[in-house]
Amino acid sequence: MKSITVSEVGPRDGLQSVASQMPTSAKLAWIAREHSAGVREIEVGSFVSPKLLPQMADTAEVVRGALELPGLTVAVLAPNQRGCEAAIAAGAHKISLPLSVSETHSLKNLRRDHAAMLVEIQACLALVNAQPLDQRPHFEVGLSTAFGCSIEGPVRAQQVFDLAHRVLDLGVVEIGLSDTTGMGNPAQLETLVTGIWERMGTSVLTGVHLHNTRGQGLANALKAVELGITTIDSSLGGLGGCPFAPGASGNIVTEDLVFLLESMGYSTGIDLEALLQVRHEVAALLPEENWYGFAAEAGLPKGWQPLAAAGA
Amino acid sequence: MKSITVSEVGPRDGLQSVASQMPTSAKLAWIAREHSAGVREIEVGSFVSPKLLPQMADTAEVVRGALELPGLTVAVLAPNQRGCEAAIAAGAHKISLPLSVSETHSLKNLRRDHAAMLVEIQACLALVNAQPLDQRPHFEVGLSTAFGCSIEGPVRAQQVFDLAHRVLDLGVVEIGLSDTTGMGNPAQLETLVTGIWERMGTSVLTGVHLHNTRGQGLANALKAVELGITTIDSSLGGLGGCPFAPGASGNIVTEDLVFLLESMGYSTGIDLEALLQVRHEVAALLPEENWYGFAAEAGLPKGWQPLAAAGA
Repeated sequence: MKSITVSEVGPRDGLQSVASQMPTSAKLAWIAREHSAGVREIEVGSFVSPKLLPQMADTAEVVRGALELPGLTVAVLAPNQRGCEAAIAAGAHKISLPLSVSETHSLKNLRRDHAAMLVEIQACLALVNAQPLDQRPHFEVGLSTAFGCSIEGPVRAQQVFDLAHRVLDLGVVEIGLSDTTGMGNPAQLETLVTGIWERMGTSVLTGVHLHNTRGQGLANALKAVELGITTIDSSLGGLGGCPFAPGASGNIVTEDLVFLLESMGYSTGIDLEALLQVRHEVAALLPEENWYGFAAEAGLPKGWQPLAAAGA
Repeated sequence: MKSITVSEVGPRDGLQSVASQMPTSAKLAWIAREHSAGVREIEVGSFVSPKLLPQMADTAEVVRGALELPGLTVAVLAPNQRGCEAAIAAGAHKISLPLSVSETHSLKNLRRDHAAMLVEIQACLALVNAQPLDQRPHFEVGLSTAFGCSIEGPVRAQQVFDLAHRVLDLGVVEIGLSDTTGMGNPAQLETLVTGIWERMGTSVLTGVHLHNTRGQGLANALKAVELGITTIDSSLGGLGGCPFAPGASGNIVTEDLVFLLESMGYSTGIDLEALLQVRHEVAALLPEENWYGFAAEAGLPKGWQPLAAAGA
């Protein structure tokens, strides 16, 4: 039975997109409840300027709280050297730095072109590598807008490969692929994943971050795990923008993803019934948000159990 | 480039589930508009008792109107011999008769057990085969609740294979698989489809009817087309029950399915931009219904075109 890591990004990608400010204690309650349902990797926040994203101002405290949970990989996002310093100081296990394949998007989002971003990445890598081996966090560069850009339009696979090469040439050993704009499809995902694996080896890419903006999230996730991707990001209740609002981010829904994977016989380590309960509890903490998700609304099918448990 | 038939079931599966009664002229306008967007198979209605489903009382008239559209396969549902007679009299090109793998569901839904249903199917087949070859409609038995039953719970693959055998033994040459309850997953779909093909030949099964009740519709559709299934049912705007309401049927959304297929390089013959326009027009005819669909809400990605047109 193949194991898949479902990496919960709601406390980061979800909360940074919503207007309300969730108190630190509520964030930690959310994280602890998902952990108790079996989730073993959670992106708990982002080390960005609190002026830009006040919702993320307490990330260091959230990291420290999350580190108490046994077996949990505590992941964070850091867009620059300063964020990486803070992430390392807080003790995060995994740091993701987003690098937009669309240079236009990079300039608009982080006010840096590719050259400037690569300098930033190099500095972050030096910080990470200066840590003692037993305390060194994983450092991943997430290639965002890899499936298309809402400003530039289509992004060619060769652009992704070229930028991935430049990142790996710096000494980075882990990259991710992000369908930031929800423009991707399974054929494109296969082209990108197998293209990177053939050119740069399979070890450099193990995870994808997909959005459900145009309803393709789980079809893309299916293709990803069938290819051999082992980590899929998702957000509880699809938090991170209601997909029904134009321009919303529309993360794929953790509950629906777990339903897909466990129904098919993949092992996520997550108790889906417990997860659905967590969703209702967390939704109650943010009642003004648009929670969505099909499995949660319809409920589990009568007699449902994971394929592995069913022994089918 | 592989062709996939997207079979629109909204005028049947959609309208039979909604409270409002759509006038015949509006149904025909809907059908004509979808045809103009390139849709080439539409299930236009159901020959059931008008006491049970008054929304379907005008099906003969709708069939006759739809037959005017060049190149359109006019499909209908008929649950019994009487319905088949009416479908043949109206001139439908394709008749689907639903047979529930769950006998409990069959008794509840059609008040007949498997033995009684098989007698009915035999009578229908005789009616169909009595037609001159050049006017003979396609006759398909759709195996409903093939992926699970909301009353009985899980349905074993062997139950599906056994019932399929009994149907084919009557002389039926086409069967379909329906995830009536939205309980299916891609691994199960593969087991069922390849199991039928290995046991009964590939020609007997070319189409699937999927629901999106638990968000798995497009993942299942992806698996289906990758296996070699060539007809996928779907409903404009997901009409057929809002998936957010418990117990809703939650058809997969035609627009999202076409986005998936055309993005991947499959040819559906459908102009997606025109289809999105049709969706808005038809939605205006039924304003009280819950229309959904991700591609329609988010809009097409900037610069999007079918993979075949992009030449990628």
